[in-house]
Amino acid sequence: MNSYNITSLIKKKRDKQALEADEIAYLIRQYRRDAVPDYQMSAFLMAAYLNGMNDEEASVLTREMLHSGKVMDLSDVPGIKVDKHSTGGVGDKTSLILAPIVAACGVPVPMISGRGLGHTGGTLDKLESIPGFNVNLDLDRYVEVLRKHNLVLVGQTDEIAPADKRMYALRDVTATVESIPLIAGSIMSKKLAEGIDALVLDVKFGSGAFMKTREEALELAGRLVGIAEEFGKKTIAYLTSMEQPLGCHIGNWLEVEESIGCLNGNGPEDLMSLSHQLAGTMIYLGGKAESIEEGVERSRQAVQDGSAIRKLRDIVLEQDGSADYIDRPDDYPKAATSFQVHAGSEGYVTAMDTYRIGMAALELGAGRTSKEDEIDPHAGIILKKKIGDPVKEGETIAVCFTNNEVTTDKVHLMLQDAITINDVWKQAPELITDVVTREGVTNWTR
Amino acid sequence: MNSYNITSLIKKKRDKQALEADEIAYLIRQYRRDAVPDYQMSAFLMAAYLNGMNDEEASVLTREMLHSGKVMDLSDVPGIKVDKHSTGGVGDKTSLILAPIVAACGVPVPMISGRGLGHTGGTLDKLESIPGFNVNLDLDRYVEVLRKHNLVLVGQTDEIAPADKRMYALRDVTATVESIPLIAGSIMSKKLAEGIDALVLDVKFGSGAFMKTREEALELAGRLVGIAEEFGKKTIAYLTSMEQPLGCHIGNWLEVEESIGCLNGNGPEDLMSLSHQLAGTMIYLGGKAESIEEGVERSRQAVQDGSAIRKLRDIVLEQDGSADYIDRPDDYPKAATSFQVHAGSEGYVTAMDTYRIGMAALELGAGRTSKEDEIDPHAGIILKKKIGDPVKEGETIAVCFTNNEVTTDKVHLMLQDAITINDVWKQAPELITDVVTREGVTNWTR
Repeated sequence: MNSYNITSLIKKKRDKQALEADEIAYLIRQYRRDAVPDYQMSAFLMAAYLNGMNDEEASVLTREMLHSGKVMDLSDVPGIKVDKHSTGGVGDKTSLILAPIVAACGVPVPMISGRGLGHTGGTLDKLESIPGFNVNLDLDRYVEVLRKHNLVLVGQTDEIAPADKRMYALRDVTATVESIPLIAGSIMSKKLAEGIDALVLDVKFGSGAFMKTREEALELAGRLVGIAEEFGKKTIAYLTSMEQPLGCHIGNWLEVEESIGCLNGNGPEDLMSLSHQLAGTMIYLGGKAESIEEGVERSRQAVQDGSAIRKLRDIVLEQDGSADYIDRPDDYPKAATSFQVHAGSEGYVTAMDTYRIGMAALELGAGRTSKEDEIDPHAGIILKKKIGDPVKEGETIAVCFTNNEVTTDKVHLMLQDAITINDVWKQAPELITDVVTREGVTNWTR
Repeated sequence: MNSYNITSLIKKKRDKQALEADEIAYLIRQYRRDAVPDYQMSAFLMAAYLNGMNDEEASVLTREMLHSGKVMDLSDVPGIKVDKHSTGGVGDKTSLILAPIVAACGVPVPMISGRGLGHTGGTLDKLESIPGFNVNLDLDRYVEVLRKHNLVLVGQTDEIAPADKRMYALRDVTATVESIPLIAGSIMSKKLAEGIDALVLDVKFGSGAFMKTREEALELAGRLVGIAEEFGKKTIAYLTSMEQPLGCHIGNWLEVEESIGCLNGNGPEDLMSLSHQLAGTMIYLGGKAESIEEGVERSRQAVQDGSAIRKLRDIVLEQDGSADYIDRPDDYPKAATSFQVHAGSEGYVTAMDTYRIGMAALELGAGRTSKEDEIDPHAGIILKKKIGDPVKEGETIAVCFTNNEVTTDKVHLMLQDAITINDVWKQAPELITDVVTREGVTNWTR
């Protein structure tokens, strides 16, 4: 491999030029070897943030981060391995619902998840709210559990894409997180390391998501699909709205509880519908349905016949968790304090500032403001009303749970502020707006 | 002082917003205290490079870098203290000529200079080619020598603007050097620390300068004058062309030799004329002439009556240098190897790639490619022809001196390539193009 002057590579990006594949590869490899210091990488990342990266640059970046660590070989596990990745949103617990559904339908789901940061939750934190549940399996055990159950739910180890891990930490403190090519590279390097054959993406946009507009989300989805296809992984991305939280429960155990409800056939319509759509697409990509529609049908059956909830129970037991609360979620210990938020006027819920609702959950203890923070599995919010629902004055619109009493007044105000009640009825926003595949973008109109 | 989240400050600049004075001050102070790591500063610098900084930001940056170290108090030295700063070019030795002239005319010149880097030389390296010359005076001695001779010629110590020193080193390896507000802040923090009352600036543009175009040079000059005036220092900036080297000698001792010639009244016209203009402006700002024109006249007299060369001799002796080579420059030891570059055809010199000529001098040993390089005081180039001069085929156009024989073939080719000979005569470019003061820009037409 050629060697390059690092300052010249930074200069090239600074001057809006594209780097050659060899140049990007050299930069990342030298960074991995500590031959490029953080201060040069952060200057490069800011230049890349402001001047962009083309498809080839993003693809080489992904490849180098992917190969900076272990890439799982799942060829010994029969079947087409499919995972789902969501860019994150408030109340987004679809992973907990669709993973057991898809596995129950015979498609292996090797799921490596992250923790929550900021206003969005993380699947790992939710799983760990189940007493005993162990997300830290070594890689041999990862393969073993997947083979046995068609499902494994673990956290990212230091062996998976370490260059991304280090670069992400650097981006976090240098204001270079929200770059579409850098986000795409970061997501895909981790997903490709799982050993998957196909991928379903849920790219969220709106006040509760990292991408604020549909345009940004479309660009990110296009980048993600492009990279995935370049690595030979068939991928379908859905653009979904985060103009209000997904489902009604926000907070770690509260979201597990709502997911158990869904798997028992008692879930809110928006959450059920999106979970089935994503699960059905995974089942289709996994070769267990002829079409997405048939996949969705199989997904519904797996809930109806109880195979999905049994799959969740099995995986909880396999990964050292207690199944008691899967069977009887009402027995789960409650937070020390709960309080209600009431409607200040009569009318309809017309808007929800989803970001603020996520921040309110964080205040209650459901998330972390820094990587070192402990999270409280009991803390969170149950929404009693969502956009389009009629409310009477004084009616409960949300119930909050916390072990941190000092925040109650603040959270009360935040939620009253975040939920808009108006005289004129407004329809809830369409949840899925577009589908992006290798072939292009399809507007989703039903 | 308020405290700020550093990532938010980087984000603000990334998003093209101006930082408040307090925010810039906080960033620089925390950086000085190692509370801001290099990787955050380099991300900020790249954002500032790409998105710019307004006048207030640049001014606060200057102030903070200035006060990161010692600011000289020269109020005990009588007279209006005036210095000159040049943005650097090939063959630019005006400091060596004008400093003794201005001091001889009764204006104190407290000159703190830098070393050369890249294709341009540095005054310190030139001074050190005089055997024994000591540029490392402590700050007490600095005041004492200035008071005694109206002149002192020293190097930047660690006490002067240490934040700038550290930031410059970071910019050098993160491709963030060529930013006009950052350059302006770096120059002015060092110049203001000298304890000056007024300043003359020589802002060079063209292939041999850091600013490639007149437009960039005008912007930099405007910024420099703006900052200087804000700190209450009367300042006049000249824009001068670097389309060909200044004078005929390039290289450390060779430039001292040419400067001695100038002070003895035997210098090339372009170099003499610019030196007198800058010196005359300093004499005017120092209150020893009623106008710049009168200052220029006094400058010419100081050369004619021998007071300027005597001043150089005095300061060399005061700073431990040998005056022998000031009296008899021909006795200076010669480089081991010299060779001539001949014209390949008959015609006129019509263009000089000044950057390449500077790089050729560097190859011969006159400069350094990294901060650790030793420089060779004997190495360099004497140009026998400049733009507008007629040449015969085979005539000597340059003579090179080196102690590093291996470079001779390479340098020979570089110089033949850098000096264009053409059938059609072309006039040498106008040396001074504009004057920039607080009042604005004046096109310089004589």
